[in-house]
Amino acid sequence: MSTNLNKIREALAKQTQKNHEIFNYAIPDTWLAFDYKGSKIKVNDGNVLVNPYHFYQSLIEDVFLKQTSTELRSYYLDHPVDKGFDNGNWIRKSSAYSMMVRTSGSYDHDRTGKLEDQNLYHLKDTGTFLKTLAYLPLLKRMGIDVLYLLPIAKYSLKDKKGELGSPYGVSNFFALDEGLKDPMTGDDTTVNDEFKAFVEAAHALDMKVIIDIIPRTNSVNSDLIIDHPDWFYWIDHKDLEDYRPPMVEGLKSTLPAKKEYFKELFSSPSVEEHLHKFRKNPRDLNPEQWKKMVKAYKSKKNTKEILDLVQEYFDMSVAPAFSDHINDPQPAWSDVTFFRMYNDHPINSQPFLDELGEFNPYILFDVAKCSLNPGSQPNMPLWELLSDIIPFYQTEFGIDGARIDMGHALPVELIDMIISKAKKIDPNFCFIAEELDIENAQASIDKGYNMIIGDGFIREPRVYEGMFNAFAYSAMNLPSPVFACGETHDTPRLASRNGEEVLAKMLSVFNLFVPNAVPFLNSGQEFFERQPMNTGLDCKPNEAEALDKNDPYYGKLALFDRYQLHYLHPRRWEMVETMEKASKIRQSLMSSLVKMDKVYPLGFSAPWDTAAGFGYEGRNKMTLVIANTDYQHDKEHWVRLDTLPDAYNNEGTILKQIFSSEDAENETDVFIESTRNVRIWFKKGEVKIFEIKAK
Amino acid sequence: MSTNLNKIREALAKQTQKNHEIFNYAIPDTWLAFDYKGSKIKVNDGNVLVNPYHFYQSLIEDVFLKQTSTELRSYYLDHPVDKGFDNGNWIRKSSAYSMMVRTSGSYDHDRTGKLEDQNLYHLKDTGTFLKTLAYLPLLKRMGIDVLYLLPIAKYSLKDKKGELGSPYGVSNFFALDEGLKDPMTGDDTTVNDEFKAFVEAAHALDMKVIIDIIPRTNSVNSDLIIDHPDWFYWIDHKDLEDYRPPMVEGLKSTLPAKKEYFKELFSSPSVEEHLHKFRKNPRDLNPEQWKKMVKAYKSKKNTKEILDLVQEYFDMSVAPAFSDHINDPQPAWSDVTFFRMYNDHPINSQPFLDELGEFNPYILFDVAKCSLNPGSQPNMPLWELLSDIIPFYQTEFGIDGARIDMGHALPVELIDMIISKAKKIDPNFCFIAEELDIENAQASIDKGYNMIIGDGFIREPRVYEGMFNAFAYSAMNLPSPVFACGETHDTPRLASRNGEEVLAKMLSVFNLFVPNAVPFLNSGQEFFERQPMNTGLDCKPNEAEALDKNDPYYGKLALFDRYQLHYLHPRRWEMVETMEKASKIRQSLMSSLVKMDKVYPLGFSAPWDTAAGFGYEGRNKMTLVIANTDYQHDKEHWVRLDTLPDAYNNEGTILKQIFSSEDAENETDVFIESTRNVRIWFKKGEVKIFEIKAK
Repeated sequence: MSTNLNKIREALAKQTQKNHEIFNYAIPDTWLAFDYKGSKIKVNDGNVLVNPYHFYQSLIEDVFLKQTSTELRSYYLDHPVDKGFDNGNWIRKSSAYSMMVRTSGSYDHDRTGKLEDQNLYHLKDTGTFLKTLAYLPLLKRMGIDVLYLLPIAKYSLKDKKGELGSPYGVSNFFALDEGLKDPMTGDDTTVNDEFKAFVEAAHALDMKVIIDIIPRTNSVNSDLIIDHPDWFYWIDHKDLEDYRPPMVEGLKSTLPAKKEYFKELFSSPSVEEHLHKFRKNPRDLNPEQWKKMVKAYKSKKNTKEILDLVQEYFDMSVAPAFSDHINDPQPAWSDVTFFRMYNDHPINSQPFLDELGEFNPYILFDVAKCSLNPGSQPNMPLWELLSDIIPFYQTEFGIDGARIDMGHALPVELIDMIISKAKKIDPNFCFIAEELDIENAQASIDKGYNMIIGDGFIREPRVYEGMFNAFAYSAMNLPSPVFACGETHDTPRLASRNGEEVLAKMLSVFNLFVPNAVPFLNSGQEFFERQPMNTGLDCKPNEAEALDKNDPYYGKLALFDRYQLHYLHPRRWEMVETMEKASKIRQSLMSSLVKMDKVYPLGFSAPWDTAAGFGYEGRNKMTLVIANTDYQHDKEHWVRLDTLPDAYNNEGTILKQIFSSEDAENETDVFIESTRNVRIWFKKGEVKIFEIKAK
Repeated sequence: MSTNLNKIREALAKQTQKNHEIFNYAIPDTWLAFDYKGSKIKVNDGNVLVNPYHFYQSLIEDVFLKQTSTELRSYYLDHPVDKGFDNGNWIRKSSAYSMMVRTSGSYDHDRTGKLEDQNLYHLKDTGTFLKTLAYLPLLKRMGIDVLYLLPIAKYSLKDKKGELGSPYGVSNFFALDEGLKDPMTGDDTTVNDEFKAFVEAAHALDMKVIIDIIPRTNSVNSDLIIDHPDWFYWIDHKDLEDYRPPMVEGLKSTLPAKKEYFKELFSSPSVEEHLHKFRKNPRDLNPEQWKKMVKAYKSKKNTKEILDLVQEYFDMSVAPAFSDHINDPQPAWSDVTFFRMYNDHPINSQPFLDELGEFNPYILFDVAKCSLNPGSQPNMPLWELLSDIIPFYQTEFGIDGARIDMGHALPVELIDMIISKAKKIDPNFCFIAEELDIENAQASIDKGYNMIIGDGFIREPRVYEGMFNAFAYSAMNLPSPVFACGETHDTPRLASRNGEEVLAKMLSVFNLFVPNAVPFLNSGQEFFERQPMNTGLDCKPNEAEALDKNDPYYGKLALFDRYQLHYLHPRRWEMVETMEKASKIRQSLMSSLVKMDKVYPLGFSAPWDTAAGFGYEGRNKMTLVIANTDYQHDKEHWVRLDTLPDAYNNEGTILKQIFSSEDAENETDVFIESTRNVRIWFKKGEVKIFEIKAK
């Protein structure tokens, strides 16, 4: 079995036969976390030189094909799921790694200083599914069992952002980004084969694959325009340059698009002006001209994008999307638009529109937030298509879960269609809501999601403001799990925030032990990457300049540009080893970690102490995980054990140290004092783990 | 013409035709100081990737063969010499660059992290004559016109020091080190052809070539042993392990081997014990056995070194040399021995020896310093051979000068033979004495040398002790020029001394303007190399650890080990440009620089001020070169101009700034004050140059 991995292996074996020339092809040593038998040269800077064909062939043979293989299907269609963790709730026991294949698989293999589409060996320096396989053994070693992939679908290259364009500007849900196909396999396999093989490989290591689905927006240059111009919003091309969200006088900044603000909204002159910019869709405007254009588009000679042709034939353009909050200062999102979810205007808005006149389908805060402001006529063919995306990836590629981008802005009925279609195929399919507000945790669970993203990346880094403790201690009371995460692809990197590498390491380790949370590593976090992938959330204006000016990737953002993560960071192996050790302890505590009645939050001398910790009760054993969250000072903390059951806090009881994130050589046991407390000395940012036997 | 360069070019052209595979072959960008037309990839770290065959072929064609070419002869046999600078004194106007070809041409071209004899492309990473050509255009640009080469002759690999052995352990004066042959030319050219081409190339750029000749010592494994065992000193092999210079009780440390100390010397029991270790030479001991050994040595099957055979056949060994100073704490120099300059014992020592008994030829301080302690029977066949070395390099390779290593320890008559034979071939041949003591400057001139090394490298770095000023202001009064140099291949690097890069840059620039001195750059000094090449002079015990522990060359010494200079130092181009500009000014002042009556030393507010400067008078113009020698502080110096002729120090006269080593953008003119002084503001270590027009 593992049909697709075998197919890739065969294609590589064929190429290995042909390619005997000298290969001065570098990979970072962390891509070589298996016993590679081929000839290799280790360079002192951490690079390893290999014959790429032979290397990837061996990787597939020796790492993935050696595991028990199954047919390409979603993981839990082939594996038993733990009791109580069915219906997608297996995510509660997982550790996730967020990666963008285009970036995580990027490496300057020929060391020319540039990430080329064709390097000296006519191979790709940017990331591909095939190359990314090389990093999975190391992720496995660090305890990762969920790969959360940023979008992998075809995206528009027209007027692209940055050097490569944003994968969030999807132009076809049912096609993969051809850029992720590797040239090493030649024409013998397709990008679809290679993603299938990727999922097979992940499953072989018992890793699950979750993808990012974006049903609310689509590229302004969507492939769907040609058949469904009426699913989009249209303006004159001349209006595109000045197009922006209208500012509503008399309303505050960034208000939710609730009905209570609509009076002010629709009486605003700039809103009225904005509404008048929208036009009928071009096919309805001039069906004959549309037919001509379709013919031109489908002609073999055509090299133009669909949106170019609409502009040429109609002087019209798809209207860009913008934030669904009134008076949000963000500009319009030039590369994407909203889908027209309803065939009529929002019911909440119709009375106000009636007073102003007749309007074509338009984009405004009410329409953007159609979950709050539905129309009366759902665009059912569109909804069917959007709810068929996940089934396509399930049946074609065997994925195991999905994050729904901007799910909060979708009609509740559509979310329900999406979730129920997927669950019909795989009852254990997991859904993650792009919901940052923990107030909405219950609502998300009610909709059928298994967890929400939450706001860890905002609160965790703010240790001195007390927000880290507020996050860590409150997660266990939430109706839904959240990600225990200090950074995402949209936020600053921990290693570039105040606290830098000390903070990054402390959070990466402690997040493995936050109750009711799913540990989440953002690709590169494990080797102190400093440069954000995007500056979308919680970023300062200079956030994109986190690197040294001489760094070849200074100012580059992985979401748009060619970007190589700093795989050769000098402390990379220290982090791998620390995460490996901590993850094993996490596994041994799993039964207590997911049962909130086995979790005991620990107190310190005062609530504002820079420390956090939990006790996890097992059979006749309590395990304490305690962090000195102060990233600037070594400190002695006074840990209160009076919340623990009596069997664990008697004077003189030994706390046996079993782990330290900083100084594993110097593990020291401590004793409980007469006041049922212990004093423990920590290095800055140190996480320690102790065991107490029941008395 | 340029026959040898053409030969190399042709060999490369042939190889270029054959080698079309992918070359991921890196050179540092400073090796590409010409307009290379071939395909190249510039890496952001300063590497440039090229096809090596094509690159070196183009280098020869476009840089060297484009110049007017002449036959391979010493430079001044083909070029006129300036009046007053004949007889080798052209050195007084020169700028020297000291290089060791094996090291300066070393580069990890395939970036495997190792300097291989055969890299991935079956080419050499260590230095060769051919590869070193690539750096000459940049040296030319920096104003260098003399290449001073550390030994290039065949040296012994038996019991070699370090990874590669020391080139000072010469085993054959009349053969070049085969390691300097480049594999790129295949079998089409020999190492001799390649050195000839090197000299042709240097001459094409009007650079002269000076080599290092070592007539006093030779490898203990010398090729001369087989024919002349009587030219060496012999001990039993069993005594080799404990062999060391005897310590003389009652005498102080490091005394010169003068007759006045001989009473104590020869009454020392450890001296007597030492003298008894010496044996007759093995041929005289047992002529039959010697004949057998010679036969074995010359047999085609023999793979053994000569010294191995003597040890095998006679249980004897050549005695190592040691310092010619009594009670010098240095151990014996295990890899080299002294030549037996006289067939009898020193005349000065004979009376003392007579009292002790009969002795075989021995090595002791008296013999070592045979210039002070000659015998009565010169070893004429040896002297003839030693005085034929330079003529061999003159006629075969066209060299232009030589430094005589340990010349001070050679018989005066031998020095005379060496100098007169060379001058007969080329009257303008230049001789440099390895004489550090400026007290001996006149004596060296009297012997026929053109200059002495001097002690700049000891005094220049000691700015705060006032020794830099003592050096710079006294050089003009010496009867011989000295090198204006802050470091040599035997000393610590300026960039690793107190003052680091600030000191290194200040001295590199100011040395161009020290009167009666020849500017001297030690290879790597121009890009702030920190690691010494050897720790022979003025070094502390930890001197070999000047690099970061993670540096691949940490602890390595170029004189013995594979070593790559740090060609990619981030400030490399800043230094090139500063040196280029300063050298041009030096050239424009040359007629004043070499005439001491045109030089005006400048005073400051106090003799201990950290500043130095000279005025150079030209036609109606005075040029002032002034340095703030304080490498820690920016400073305003009060410069006394009262020593200048009256035409140049009137109140209100403008000093027009024409150069700054630090901030060329902000050149500011200054005015002479009523007290005939100026106040000038300097950055730390800054050198400024001003012009004053005569009033």
